[in-house]
Amino acid sequence: MVTILGLDPGLRATGWGAIAVEGPSLSFVGAGTVRSSAEALLGARLAALYDGLSLVVADLAPDEAAAETTYVSRDGAATLKLGQARGVALLVPAVRGIPVSEYAPSLVKKSVVGAGRADKRQIKAMVTMLLPAARGDTEHAWDALAVAICHASHRRSRSAASGRAAA
Amino acid sequence: MVTILGLDPGLRATGWGAIAVEGPSLSFVGAGTVRSSAEALLGARLAALYDGLSLVVADLAPDEAAAETTYVSRDGAATLKLGQARGVALLVPAVRGIPVSEYAPSLVKKSVVGAGRADKRQIKAMVTMLLPAARGDTEHAWDALAVAICHASHRRSRSAASGRAAA
Repeated sequence: MVTILGLDPGLRATGWGAIAVEGPSLSFVGAGTVRSSAEALLGARLAALYDGLSLVVADLAPDEAAAETTYVSRDGAATLKLGQARGVALLVPAVRGIPVSEYAPSLVKKSVVGAGRADKRQIKAMVTMLLPAARGDTEHAWDALAVAICHASHRRSRSAASGRAAA
Repeated sequence: MVTILGLDPGLRATGWGAIAVEGPSLSFVGAGTVRSSAEALLGARLAALYDGLSLVVADLAPDEAAAETTYVSRDGAATLKLGQARGVALLVPAVRGIPVSEYAPSLVKKSVVGAGRADKRQIKAMVTMLLPAARGDTEHAWDALAVAICHASHRRSRSAASGRAAA
């Protein structure tokens, strides 16, 4: 059995969702949202995300982690903010030696819903169908579960390339 | 005496520079560069930066840290990359409860060189004048020392506001 942690990073709220994979069968392990206060300094916000996700990783001991690659918007300030949160979210598993895979958003949607375009509602409905026990407190948690499901279906084909990546 | 750690974050190379402040006098503590391999996966690169900077912070036990705010370029992919490295660099002191201040690049230049515009060579020359013992292995290390010097001259006036910041 392999436990996969999906991550949906954001500075205000980072979603996480964990599933267990045994052969072709998937099951729900847990999901939730780690928040940082918009009133705090940037360093303290990043530390809040790090501490919250570290508790999750210590608790669930995932074997592998996954996150969506990011749409790069024209809003540079938003991209910088997201990048900072994303760096911390991916660091939490990586610093413990847990490999982190990245998937394009369209591939995540295709893996879960069967089409490259899907709205939040469709994703939640399909995640609930694939993981009947799933509970998520925010759409970030559902998105994180979707990324975990995507990784579960692609990890075998990717494993050959997992040792290296482009700069 | 207060030890200040300046940071110049980047995914390939993050510069650090530490100074000691005692009243009006500044002295050089150390400076260097932490690198990550462009061949490695993003998670492993972030972990390399985190581990390298964690050693520096454990060794020097700075009381306060500082970094430049970031120019947001039109190149979204570059901004995302920088953001991810910046999130990790600022996290290292923050997660240990060390406050991290941010300064606009023009203020750093003005504090060190006396003008809002200055090239790398001028900055290095002025840092060497202010800290005769300073040694830096890259321009990132010199930039990090410049940020530390900027913080040394602004920390008193900023301290009243240090508990909070805008979102």
